[in-house]
Amino acid sequence: MLGKYLDAVRAKKPLIHNITNYVTVNDVANMELACGASPIMADEPEEVRDIQTICNGLCINLGTLNRRTIPAMNESGDCAAELGHAILLDPVGAGASTLRTDTALALLDSVPFDVVRGNISEIRTLFAGAGNTHGVDAAEGDSVTEANLLNMGRFACSFAERFHTVCVISGAIDLVADAKTCYAIRNGVPEMSQITGTGCQLSGLTTCFIAANPEEKLQASAAAVAAMGLAGETALSRQQPGDGNATLRNRIIDAIYNMSGTNLDSGEKIERIIG
Amino acid sequence: MLGKYLDAVRAKKPLIHNITNYVTVNDVANMELACGASPIMADEPEEVRDIQTICNGLCINLGTLNRRTIPAMNESGDCAAELGHAILLDPVGAGASTLRTDTALALLDSVPFDVVRGNISEIRTLFAGAGNTHGVDAAEGDSVTEANLLNMGRFACSFAERFHTVCVISGAIDLVADAKTCYAIRNGVPEMSQITGTGCQLSGLTTCFIAANPEEKLQASAAAVAAMGLAGETALSRQQPGDGNATLRNRIIDAIYNMSGTNLDSGEKIERIIG
Amino acid sequence: MLGKYLDAVRAKKPLIHNITNYVTVNDVANMELACGASPIMADEPEEVRDIQTICNGLCINLGTLNRRTIPAMNESGDCAAELGHAILLDPVGAGASTLRTDTALALLDSVPFDVVRGNISEIRTLFAGAGNTHGVDAAEGDSVTEANLLNMGRFACSFAERFHTVCVISGAIDLVADAKTCYAIRNGVPEMSQITGTGCQLSGLTTCFIAANPEEKLQASAAAVAAMGLAGETALSRQQPGDGNATLRNRIIDAIYNMSGTNLDSGEKIERIIG
Repeated sequence: MLGKYLDAVRAKKPLIHNITNYVTVNDVANMELACGASPIMADEPEEVRDIQTICNGLCINLGTLNRRTIPAMNESGDCAAELGHAILLDPVGAGASTLRTDTALALLDSVPFDVVRGNISEIRTLFAGAGNTHGVDAAEGDSVTEANLLNMGRFACSFAERFHTVCVISGAIDLVADAKTCYAIRNGVPEMSQITGTGCQLSGLTTCFIAANPEEKLQASAAAVAAMGLAGETALSRQQPGDGNATLRNRIIDAIYNMSGTNLDSGEKIERIIG
Repeated sequence: MLGKYLDAVRAKKPLIHNITNYVTVNDVANMELACGASPIMADEPEEVRDIQTICNGLCINLGTLNRRTIPAMNESGDCAAELGHAILLDPVGAGASTLRTDTALALLDSVPFDVVRGNISEIRTLFAGAGNTHGVDAAEGDSVTEANLLNMGRFACSFAERFHTVCVISGAIDLVADAKTCYAIRNGVPEMSQITGTGCQLSGLTTCFIAANPEEKLQASAAAVAAMGLAGETALSRQQPGDGNATLRNRIIDAIYNMSGTNLDSGEKIERIIG
Repeated sequence: MLGKYLDAVRAKKPLIHNITNYVTVNDVANMELACGASPIMADEPEEVRDIQTICNGLCINLGTLNRRTIPAMNESGDCAAELGHAILLDPVGAGASTLRTDTALALLDSVPFDVVRGNISEIRTLFAGAGNTHGVDAAEGDSVTEANLLNMGRFACSFAERFHTVCVISGAIDLVADAKTCYAIRNGVPEMSQITGTGCQLSGLTTCFIAANPEEKLQASAAAVAAMGLAGETALSRQQPGDGNATLRNRIIDAIYNMSGTNLDSGEKIERIIG
């Protein structure tokens, strides 16, 4: 079912403007290329309107947030909204600092994001309007499990409704929801959490998918999440003795590079849990 | 013919100051190390004169351009010119924003670049003094082909003449020209365009080659271009089933690391088309 | 003997705040994950106190130093000191510019670093209060050799005494010293110097080790240094024909990922030369 959304990315080759952190930016760029899209990174307020105008989507990521680039985020968001571009927010570290929480909330207030993707701590923080996260990883207590799945799905729908967006909560089980529907996706492997930037890469990938599938952003987001998880599974299956997280990182991007719509159709593990 | 220029890099181990973007900087540094040179990255205006003074070359790259580092580019350019260092400009995204076009043109006006390396859109933009590019990749319409090769060669020579520099135009066929001579280089593979930063890496590599071969900058630039393309061919031939753009990225740097002058001599595909 | 310090990192999973350069930051993050710790990168002065508060350690690295982040270094250092967090300084390029030397000296004056890790040129520069380095690599003349080992060990102890810190000098032979004791570590391979950021990665790794072993910072630092060197040996032994510095980079991180305390115990090459 989800393969066609990947096929659309490869057919349309969207150009994505990314304002993102300097830790994982290279992997984000290679991931967007791997799925058939093209990345541009620009964060100087003076030029981001020019850059956004030639693009099809916008990915805003709050990792290594700094005062200099916040105006660029606002300007790009306004421009993307005017032009009807797909827009995603990755609120990295929301809850870990007041600056990140406040910046994420202010952006949510002014930019009509199509998707917000984060871990459960970040998403909870934004829903509460304030809160604490354990660094940039999800705190253990409140992860999505089989036991609390339906409750967490309802929470994801509530988030989506409040912020008029698709809500993607990444974890051992991923949730992708709009106000009325929630999917649980069970692709992926735990080893992905030992690589820096798999979340950032997924945000970049999701932006490509929604830019290429503007009429079906919920399903397109689910497709990106399933594709990323499936890539993790493929990558892990290719590990050799002695390989570790650095090689796995490369293999995940490679797996997206080699993934076809048919591969995704047969590898996806998606269940509609609400709606 | 070109292998001796690589040998000179390995013998002289030039130290290269890079003011470059945060997307591809790590690959640029590893590429410069792979060819036998050493990289330094510094972009704080206050220190770049100190840094430039201990170096042998300067590579200025406009990716992720921001207001803070433009003065560092000017200061480093002035210092490098005073000291007779090799200087290269990679006008990433010229044409994609007014800021990038204007900054590139201002730098061309004040700094005596030995080489300008870009894709055809960027080079056209600078020649026209203004223009539009499709993001940071070359627009398709105006790429260098066998059919328009001689005309494009003449254009490269005109660019070189106007800006008193060697002009390197990267594409399926690469052109390397000064005012009177143009080489066409047919090394490389299309898969290189699906890796972020192969252009940035080539700019870094070229800076190493011209720093180590200051008397023959045209030929040294051609050698860097052929070496990069040959590395792409070597890397692609080493790909295993399931490998993709992330692994290819590593293998290209590895291929430069293992390339000898003799390898380059036997793998180069270079033709003098003008002069 | 040293394996237990690695085991402690994997058991305690410290969260490390890194203010580091944009060249090698991704590798530093993956290295910290590889040893069982978690990285956070934040450099905006306004938020670093929030970030430091939720962490267990602080790694300050002066590569790509810029004026904007120096206040973040001071603020984080003060906060980490108040909270008793492990703190490390990597004075990248001290001696290469006045800004870097002065910034390193000012930080040493105000922040109670537990460890300072650099190459011999950087360490000498700071000891002298001024000086020159050949770029960011150690100048050849003053490297640590078997012939001058005891003298260099005494120098490392003097540095440690003067700055009330553990002193780590990286080179062909690594030295790890406090005021009274110096270890020489003979792990590692020369090929590590042809990868950008092995020093930065070691600084990140060392911060993880001292954060997880706060009562034995000298031994924990020695363990990190031996682990990094052993990882280089393991990585080199896994290289295939055609592999180069980019693949070696990945394999070193992979080797840390797969290293057990028992592996470190049997691979460490450490000698107490003073004390």
